Amino acid sequence: MQTHSFKMMDGNMAAAYVAYRVNEVCAIYPITPSSPMAELADEWSASKVLNLWGTTPEVIEMQSEGGAAGTVHGALQTGCLTTTFTASQGLMLMLPNMYKIAGELTSAVFHVAARSLATQALSIFGDHSDVMAARTTGFALLASASVQEAHDFALIAQAATLEARVPFLHFFDGFRTSHEINKIAVLADGQIRSMIDDKLVHAHRARALNPDNPFIRGTAQNPDVYFQAREACNPYYAATPAIVQQAMDRFARLTGRHYHLYDYTGAEDARRVIVIMGSAAATVRATVAALNASDEKVGVLQVRLYRPFSPEDLIAALPLTVEKIAVLDRTKEPGAVGEPLYQDVVASLVEMGRKTATTRMPVVVGGRYGLSSKEFTPGMARAVFAELAKTQPKTSFTVGIHDDVTHTSLEYDTAQWPTPDPQLTEALFFGLGSDGTVGANKNSIKIIGESTNLYAQGYFVYDSKKSGARTISHLRFGPQPIDAPYLIQKAGFVACHQYAFVNSIDLLRHARHGATFLLNSPHDAQQSWVSLPQQVQQAIIDKNIRFFVINASAVARDQGMGSRINIIMQAAFFALTDVLPTDEALERIKDAVKKTYGSKGEITVRRNFAAVDAALHHLVEVPVPDTISGTITMPPTVSPAAPVFVRHVTARMME
Amino acid sequence: MQTHSFKMMDGNMAAAYVAYRVNEVCAIYPITPSSPMAELADEWSASKVLNLWGTTPEVIEMQSEGGAAGTVHGALQTGCLTTTFTASQGLMLMLPNMYKIAGELTSAVFHVAARSLATQALSIFGDHSDVMAARTTGFALLASASVQEAHDFALIAQAATLEARVPFLHFFDGFRTSHEINKIAVLADGQIRSMIDDKLVHAHRARALNPDNPFIRGTAQNPDVYFQAREACNPYYAATPAIVQQAMDRFARLTGRHYHLYDYTGAEDARRVIVIMGSAAATVRATVAALNASDEKVGVLQVRLYRPFSPEDLIAALPLTVEKIAVLDRTKEPGAVGEPLYQDVVASLVEMGRKTATTRMPVVVGGRYGLSSKEFTPGMARAVFAELAKTQPKTSFTVGIHDDVTHTSLEYDTAQWPTPDPQLTEALFFGLGSDGTVGANKNSIKIIGESTNLYAQGYFVYDSKKSGARTISHLRFGPQPIDAPYLIQKAGFVACHQYAFVNSIDLLRHARHGATFLLNSPHDAQQSWVSLPQQVQQAIIDKNIRFFVINASAVARDQGMGSRINIIMQAAFFALTDVLPTDEALERIKDAVKKTYGSKGEITVRRNFAAVDAALHHLVEVPVPDTISGTITMPPTVSPAAPVFVRHVTARMME
Repeated sequence: MQTHSFKMMDGNMAAAYVAYRVNEVCAIYPITPSSPMAELADEWSASKVLNLWGTTPEVIEMQSEGGAAGTVHGALQTGCLTTTFTASQGLMLMLPNMYKIAGELTSAVFHVAARSLATQALSIFGDHSDVMAARTTGFALLASASVQEAHDFALIAQAATLEARVPFLHFFDGFRTSHEINKIAVLADGQIRSMIDDKLVHAHRARALNPDNPFIRGTAQNPDVYFQAREACNPYYAATPAIVQQAMDRFARLTGRHYHLYDYTGAEDARRVIVIMGSAAATVRATVAALNASDEKVGVLQVRLYRPFSPEDLIAALPLTVEKIAVLDRTKEPGAVGEPLYQDVVASLVEMGRKTATTRMPVVVGGRYGLSSKEFTPGMARAVFAELAKTQPKTSFTVGIHDDVTHTSLEYDTAQWPTPDPQLTEALFFGLGSDGTVGANKNSIKIIGESTNLYAQGYFVYDSKKSGARTISHLRFGPQPIDAPYLIQKAGFVACHQYAFVNSIDLLRHARHGATFLLNSPHDAQQSWVSLPQQVQQAIIDKNIRFFVINASAVARDQGMGSRINIIMQAAFFALTDVLPTDEALERIKDAVKKTYGSKGEITVRRNFAAVDAALHHLVEVPVPDTISGTITMPPTVSPAAPVFVRHVTARMME
Repeated sequence: MQTHSFKMMDGNMAAAYVAYRVNEVCAIYPITPSSPMAELADEWSASKVLNLWGTTPEVIEMQSEGGAAGTVHGALQTGCLTTTFTASQGLMLMLPNMYKIAGELTSAVFHVAARSLATQALSIFGDHSDVMAARTTGFALLASASVQEAHDFALIAQAATLEARVPFLHFFDGFRTSHEINKIAVLADGQIRSMIDDKLVHAHRARALNPDNPFIRGTAQNPDVYFQAREACNPYYAATPAIVQQAMDRFARLTGRHYHLYDYTGAEDARRVIVIMGSAAATVRATVAALNASDEKVGVLQVRLYRPFSPEDLIAALPLTVEKIAVLDRTKEPGAVGEPLYQDVVASLVEMGRKTATTRMPVVVGGRYGLSSKEFTPGMARAVFAELAKTQPKTSFTVGIHDDVTHTSLEYDTAQWPTPDPQLTEALFFGLGSDGTVGANKNSIKIIGESTNLYAQGYFVYDSKKSGARTISHLRFGPQPIDAPYLIQKAGFVACHQYAFVNSIDLLRHARHGATFLLNSPHDAQQSWVSLPQQVQQAIIDKNIRFFVINASAVARDQGMGSRINIIMQAAFFALTDVLPTDEALERIKDAVKKTYGSKGEITVRRNFAAVDAALHHLVEVPVPDTISGTITMPPTVSPAAPVFVRHVTARMME
């Protein structure tokens, strides 16, 4: 086993890092949230970064995902190791070629940042409706649940497809795993090399269509033989689950990270189990740990290999004591008898029950969660376990919304639960799209993850309007690995980079008791206090919050940086948290400045350096009085004179 | 109830007939086997045939099915009643728009002649893999099982979609129902009119996007509201099954044909039941009738509404006595735990079992049949019932092939079973693609169906090579309705239009005892006999076959018709069967000639008339001796010197 090189990166980069190294052709048409995979491959290819075999992969951008899929199919037929990256409607345009690639038993991996499909509205956010629309194609579907898994499974999928001949769709949650920055053990080239068997690569090449080895493929078949030929793939699909598990076992020997097709976590004698796929598995694991600590008997089964689905392995992973199962799907198929993962689990239990002559079939219900990146918290997972505890648990329920029309939704507690690790720091930053807040926070979390022994996670919330809209950066760091694919509920540090927000957003709703609040304020300490709305003052007093202000806008102007306040706020953040000695932190910020702005010339870099040095002189703690003062109150979200729809619907959306 | 006007037509025309009358826009990109629907609509529009509202529907051909789907979506947004016709890969290109059309709750019907998807090879033939790939879109799926149903359900779907707001995919089996000519009761315009509620049409119009009624649709939604908005369609899907049943009930009052979402046929106390969708339901019905006549207790449940699937209605239709169920799917999804209809039935039984607290769950197994128009006969359905009778019936089985690799296939008896109605005439015609045989036989079966009180069915087998390959016409007629969606097993009449076939095809394998054999022979009676291969002579003697020859090629040459022998053979067919008085039959043939060749000028018509008149003078019965004579034997399919693959695989395919 090699020692690890830890890096901070997001799921897109983690997957693309491996995909690029084990392929020769990437046919792309970038689509949100998978675009960075295609863009990184394009960048690396332009910089002549080499793959495992010492050649530069060719990256070809087509006119649409339909063309990209055709190019993949064509390149595979020449014997090239070929991949693509896509999501959502892009994946839909690839479906016809996917049936053919799978039908022809072609080794290939597609990497997908799973995203909603456009239905009643378009959405760029994440759920499994796109990959579920591809479950009919004959591709294997392998689900990663974290940035580390996106990295590792990109390799395991490639190793498995070469042996199995079944093509793989490797996916992870779009706008969660794809865009979450986490600290991962980066695979060394030697490890990647060890997982790829050259004999299998040569066999893939030998299946190429070329004049030296004339062979017919892609024919038209008639009723006389089509059905028989269609069934000829059966042995390949039957062998695939074991091939994937063997690849996982080999991978474990190389890296120490041991995955299984279906991984169970929880009580050995659990009565209630949630079955789930993708990043939310970590949320349920946190829930299970907390509930079992209170003497409940629950568990979670994480599905990694969704196609070919292996009923034997699923049942073997479940505790024999299970009485009730909730299968959670991150998709919705209106008109079906439950969603796809639910149906597969039900069919598996029925079939295996018959084979093993078990008389007791557990109660199985299905639910939907997290459509289009809707938050899924441990509190919601707890609500699912509570529903399972009822005599007649609901099926086809929803969790995470309030459905007052068809009453599918489960009630859940919005209070923070469970209590987070006291050694974990959680920090929230409110900024404006394109004000540099997100960029600076990405640098901050990378500095923390890569300059300390701490684990770290960064996640950034912005809407599809992108530039100009509100951004919220969620940073976590601490001594334990951070596998929390949900937003920060209560932060120990809250920063507001845009002064106007104090009047329009309930910034301190997510501040915990004793938190630190940093405000970019145009006023001095005293004036800053009296300018706060009374509600904010009250929250500061009630929660015993330490309140700091910095006139970052003035510092930026003074240093000739216009409205770019991000570096200044970043310096203040490091000064107020003890994650690094302040001097070292400032040096790291400057390193990041050099990296980020180096190409913009010496003057820009020097101005940024000066801003960093000047920042801390302007950071001031505001003494917090015992009582509120001033006359300012937060205005209502919308005018009381607004139309009914705006007051009752739009206002709630804005809140 | 109005009296019926009976016509002979195929499923494509039957569906298009209604679709054209109830729409204003048809956006098309014709694809086999759905092309005739689009082509007929185009032809009718060019001829200014009017729809129900007295306007000529606009038919727009696009650059691909992707464009056609976009046009459908756009036209629907203007409030037009809009349809399209497609299949297979064409349907795949429509999927992205289908998610949107369904997501926006838009009333529309797509008519699909269901066809295989290209996997290990392309196939133009029929199965459900295309419509199953659309089951995730949120469209309702309504399955027709016969030409009459394709006609009727085109209307029921339109009536239902206007009320339900859920769009419908109405489908029938490609290259079975789509191309089978059968005698149907054609809906009168008044009946069609009665099914379409103008209030609902106006409501559809009122939902149009236009400047007079500004409204926003097709937005981008973010995690704050997408999930809630996605669930907002629930009441519409919940209401759809009842809306469809009500439309079926209304339809029954108008026409006397009463359909249900799930129609059960068989023993009231059946122990074993097959669940199936599409034309093969009729095959299983024939099987059930024959088995129950031998005191078995079996039944068949035909699924008509596949989406939204209604577990309540499914369970209500099943007899309470059922112990074992086989669900047959006409598709294959490698890697899934059973095929889609199977999964829906399993999930329904589990859910309803829990609701009704029934303790006994029937044994349910799943099987695949009929991929790419592979024959599915009553003998195969009997094999499924036999498998169900075993203690541990197989699941994920196949029927209709011999799977010697993964041993999924059930053994079945290829002998003719059950004995057909003795009043039914079955006739087989062997011709060559483009020799006019199929065209003449289409005219023949239309003459029989429309000039007599008999029911009639015509089905035509040719492969994807089309022109130049062998064609086999299967004609059935008799006093009872003919619902036999499988090939003729034993014919009372066998005609060979191409002399060369007597040496290469075992023509009489499908002749029953006492059949009539008509051969287009260049020889006189005696020479025709001695020129037959010994095997054919033996079959004629053994089966007591009456043998007729006609030198149709000589007649055609004499009448200046070149190689076009079809009219002459058609006259001989009518002379040898007693379906119509010969004189009347010849008049009907001449009528058809006028219709078919009228546009080619007076000379062509007159030559055909002369050929019809001359034909019967050349028809000669060959006296059949008691023993074979001559020295001719049929050559082996391929040379014994051919390579192993050709002898063992290609030869079997050719046979």
